[in-house]
Amino acid sequence: MLDGNQMIRWMRDLWDYPRSLTGHGTRQTLEYLKNLNPDLNIHSYKSGTKVFDWEIPDEWNIYDAYIEHESGKRFAEFSKSNLHILGYSVPCDMEILLPELLSHIYTQPNQPDVIPYVTSYYHERWGFCMSENDKRKLPDGKYRVVIDATKSPGTMEIADLVIKGQSSEEIFFSTYICHPSMANNELSGPVLSSALMQYIKSQYIKPRYTYRFVFVPETIGSITYLSEHVKHLQKKVVCGFNLSCVGDERAYSHVESRIGNNLADNAIQAAFIGLKNTATYSFLERGSDERQYCAPGIDLPLCGFSRTRYSKYPEYHTSADNFDVVTAEGLDGSFDVMKSIIDAFEMKLFPKINVKCEPQLGKYGLYPTTSQKGTKPADTWTRRDVLAYADGKHNIFDIAKKIKKNIKLVVSEVTILEKHGLITSFDTAQ
Amino acid sequence: MLDGNQMIRWMRDLWDYPRSLTGHGTRQTLEYLKNLNPDLNIHSYKSGTKVFDWEIPDEWNIYDAYIEHESGKRFAEFSKSNLHILGYSVPCDMEILLPELLSHIYTQPNQPDVIPYVTSYYHERWGFCMSENDKRKLPDGKYRVVIDATKSPGTMEIADLVIKGQSSEEIFFSTYICHPSMANNELSGPVLSSALMQYIKSQYIKPRYTYRFVFVPETIGSITYLSEHVKHLQKKVVCGFNLSCVGDERAYSHVESRIGNNLADNAIQAAFIGLKNTATYSFLERGSDERQYCAPGIDLPLCGFSRTRYSKYPEYHTSADNFDVVTAEGLDGSFDVMKSIIDAFEMKLFPKINVKCEPQLGKYGLYPTTSQKGTKPADTWTRRDVLAYADGKHNIFDIAKKIKKNIKLVVSEVTILEKHGLITSFDTAQ
Amino acid sequence: MLDGNQMIRWMRDLWDYPRSLTGHGTRQTLEYLKNLNPDLNIHSYKSGTKVFDWEIPDEWNIYDAYIEHESGKRFAEFSKSNLHILGYSVPCDMEILLPELLSHIYTQPNQPDVIPYVTSYYHERWGFCMSENDKRKLPDGKYRVVIDATKSPGTMEIADLVIKGQSSEEIFFSTYICHPSMANNELSGPVLSSALMQYIKSQYIKPRYTYRFVFVPETIGSITYLSEHVKHLQKKVVCGFNLSCVGDERAYSHVESRIGNNLADNAIQAAFIGLKNTATYSFLERGSDERQYCAPGIDLPLCGFSRTRYSKYPEYHTSADNFDVVTAEGLDGSFDVMKSIIDAFEMKLFPKINVKCEPQLGKYGLYPTTSQKGTKPADTWTRRDVLAYADGKHNIFDIAKKIKKNIKLVVSEVTILEKHGLITSFDTAQ
Repeated sequence: MLDGNQMIRWMRDLWDYPRSLTGHGTRQTLEYLKNLNPDLNIHSYKSGTKVFDWEIPDEWNIYDAYIEHESGKRFAEFSKSNLHILGYSVPCDMEILLPELLSHIYTQPNQPDVIPYVTSYYHERWGFCMSENDKRKLPDGKYRVVIDATKSPGTMEIADLVIKGQSSEEIFFSTYICHPSMANNELSGPVLSSALMQYIKSQYIKPRYTYRFVFVPETIGSITYLSEHVKHLQKKVVCGFNLSCVGDERAYSHVESRIGNNLADNAIQAAFIGLKNTATYSFLERGSDERQYCAPGIDLPLCGFSRTRYSKYPEYHTSADNFDVVTAEGLDGSFDVMKSIIDAFEMKLFPKINVKCEPQLGKYGLYPTTSQKGTKPADTWTRRDVLAYADGKHNIFDIAKKIKKNIKLVVSEVTILEKHGLITSFDTAQ
Repeated sequence: MLDGNQMIRWMRDLWDYPRSLTGHGTRQTLEYLKNLNPDLNIHSYKSGTKVFDWEIPDEWNIYDAYIEHESGKRFAEFSKSNLHILGYSVPCDMEILLPELLSHIYTQPNQPDVIPYVTSYYHERWGFCMSENDKRKLPDGKYRVVIDATKSPGTMEIADLVIKGQSSEEIFFSTYICHPSMANNELSGPVLSSALMQYIKSQYIKPRYTYRFVFVPETIGSITYLSEHVKHLQKKVVCGFNLSCVGDERAYSHVESRIGNNLADNAIQAAFIGLKNTATYSFLERGSDERQYCAPGIDLPLCGFSRTRYSKYPEYHTSADNFDVVTAEGLDGSFDVMKSIIDAFEMKLFPKINVKCEPQLGKYGLYPTTSQKGTKPADTWTRRDVLAYADGKHNIFDIAKKIKKNIKLVVSEVTILEKHGLITSFDTAQ
Repeated sequence: MLDGNQMIRWMRDLWDYPRSLTGHGTRQTLEYLKNLNPDLNIHSYKSGTKVFDWEIPDEWNIYDAYIEHESGKRFAEFSKSNLHILGYSVPCDMEILLPELLSHIYTQPNQPDVIPYVTSYYHERWGFCMSENDKRKLPDGKYRVVIDATKSPGTMEIADLVIKGQSSEEIFFSTYICHPSMANNELSGPVLSSALMQYIKSQYIKPRYTYRFVFVPETIGSITYLSEHVKHLQKKVVCGFNLSCVGDERAYSHVESRIGNNLADNAIQAAFIGLKNTATYSFLERGSDERQYCAPGIDLPLCGFSRTRYSKYPEYHTSADNFDVVTAEGLDGSFDVMKSIIDAFEMKLFPKINVKCEPQLGKYGLYPTTSQKGTKPADTWTRRDVLAYADGKHNIFDIAKKIKKNIKLVVSEVTILEKHGLITSFDTAQ
């Protein structure tokens, strides 16, 4: 069954692959995702390639890393946690004394129990990440530092999958695949995208819209993808979401687009109505690939979707971001939100009433036949409010926001009203 | 004198007519209103006529109704209150036992002292309405149920009155005439409309605007009227109000139009400034004929006006909606609001200042001649603020809202300033 | 050094000149200001000249005034305070008894210690202003009243100064020079304007914009200036400020333009971000020459700037408006705000990013090279936010407001980013 439990199983399989911007861990990750959706395409980009203001970095492969005290005791062993290695550390095999070693140790002093996640993609460094507590226990003396890695010309991988619809207009989803063993930031995103792809293919034989899913290393990957596809995307994408940190059970979060009122912004607001603990962040609080997709001159109609937003939960970017944070229920919540938006797009967006004045709902069995105060079921209000705003000018997301009812309820009422011939829906405003 | 006391007298005369969507009680009501304004036109529509998605129902005439216990004691006697009969009950003369009778008795359990107002226009039923307390006291035994009524092909009546103005553009008022003996919902509406018609005819020999007043059975009547006149109304109406529950002394309420910022919405907001206890309801809280006049594709520039809005006062749709609820003072409050809007429309709507910079008000005797802080009368601010926004682009309702002064005060200042040649007013934005 | 202390010195020099709408005190004031900026032009307008709805009043010269009791004791001596004489009093030399005298004495009863500032420009009167306390002590008996003044045909003076820029588009500053010995209302304005003129000339050899500074008697002066220059100003002015009460250390106040969202309004809002104790007043609370510059049909893109707004501080229009109210620090605060706006205008207003997607700030040394949560300096956010909104469509004031950073910080970041070739700025929206 396609649900949060399934996604948790996928995440557990993917947990140990040593992901980074590049390298075998990321490739393994994409191969695994291709097994879930075999029509996924994996594209390789040569390091050194210029992409807008950036350059694709050398490929980094990490095989092993540890610090060994002269006593033989080992610390910060990569084999125990991917996070122990500073991302993109240069290879290293040397003996040094504790004081010098310490300048290469990264900790999160305000969270002394956890290993922080630290990287240095674009400046040559080596380093290890440890808990502050473990760092303090490092004995005096000589250490051997071993980083069995390569950093050299190679490739960076990006994957995408396009589900062709009746229209060439696209709904776009992006998520990232460059973080090592952390659950919410990041594995929640790729498994949600994978589930959504399976959902669409199973639910809609030939969907109305074309759906594009993209898996990229964050920042450099989205920039690379845009550098190749920006014109196509600007022409075709009508709505998109950057999926990040979508697996915990806390908030439902919307990171607004740069300008803040595109179709994606409206869709997500319509899908949040009635949910508990929702949060809306302006673009000033962006942090994931919406930074690129909404950059000035790019301006895809996309926004960010999270449960608790990156940076806003204490386990973020540490070893504590694990399966205590991400749960099947948390993933199901995100899955529901995204499915409700997809299901809305699979309706024609602009419902328009077929009769003048209110229809006589009673004769369709859609309204009570006696009139007494306080006796009308609450949902007849939704029905009448959908009709009141089904003017062919408000799309279903606008209607949901206007009448303050979740998009699922609006879609369900539009479906009923269409069935009775009271509404016809259109692709565009009438 | 044309005031609340006069309106109360009319209401008392009209109290006992057994109004419904159709029938002799409604015809008597319209004949009475025609006596107040002899140019009122009463139009008959055949039952069975299709009007948009609806069909005009059979004519229902109610003559008498009661429940008689085998002991001879009578209950729920129509002759004591119109409300005792379920509206549009089918004729009936039969003997039944208490348990079966009870399934035909309607009460308002949360208000055990009052008779509720209940109808079943479009589904064949019979029934009686009683207070919950009286229902509980019904003795065991056999009952004779008598409903002396007819429900058969006939006509439905609607009345209208047009006061021709210099312009064919119309100000539109609608109210309803289908509720039996209740004061606020509904007799307050027809008597206010009647007073407004008399006011306009006495105050303005040839008014600037054409005024149209409509008296309809709620819902089916407004739909019928629209089905005949919608094209004309869409072309001519510039501002309209649905009058409902306009007789109590509590709130002043505005039920916004569907989109929410038409000329009627602005006019009513301008007329509410400075009043105590005003309330604005969105179209999501509509309930009277604004539902039809503002339906998608109809969209007349109309909104709803009430004192306490229907459904929002405890006596609503019960026998307690009587002359304890509606008072002369309450009706006068509504009369004032509507007169202030009419008087504003009888000005040209767009005042424009005739001088550049501030005029020297002192030389017209419109401003104090010494300048000391704290000594300027407050109303010179209104005068100066009217001048500041008399730019030919803001209409007088906009100006009232902008400067936060009641439309009456704005009209009065514009009149003074016009008299001194400082302002000229125009029909349209300059 | 050009700062608040310098401005305080100028104010002390100007303190005693008996300013009014006209006369030798105002001329002396303008001559002094011309010494500070020798290219200041002083223009004379004949009394009796019609200016829009007004007429330039007779010239009033005041030389001395006092009340002398029969005992020889003098009261309300002009030689001790300019404020003792009712502005524009007609000449007078007569003997009267106390009761009649009292009807010519103006006090501020709710502030019994201070002399109020009172005028009667357009109605012939004579009078004296005293503290309520002193008035109560006036002994019974006969008094000689002496007002050694002339009120007769003559001239009214206005000064202006234009600093030519590369563009003929103008930034406009107006302040007034008609109040006698009061510090915040009014000397703070003329000295701030004088400092700003010196600042622009010293800072920018050939500024991008043309700057126009105007010194007028309030109301009649701005009306006169407009009556002569309105067409030019409407064509050329892109942003303007009326400077009034700019010397105390309390609030920073913005009096919005009539419509409320012109370039000046936006500029001042952008300059207020991050300041403590800011206040925004709508045009309904106008009171100085913005009344004329923003009048309907004039509508220059101007707004009012004050520290604590006129009427809003207790010392306003009394002898207590002195150097306890106005300080060097207070003037410096206003100077900083106005300089920050001028400096922004001397940039091209519309920055536009030169790269697609986010630039790689690290390679320019503009961003940290390791990535760990909680370690990014706060100001990299300003940098990235400026880039995010440098779309060629938002001007720098819009950007400041959008990203909630003071215009100074935005100007500084734009300068840095331009230096690295990441941004190009344009005069107009792209």
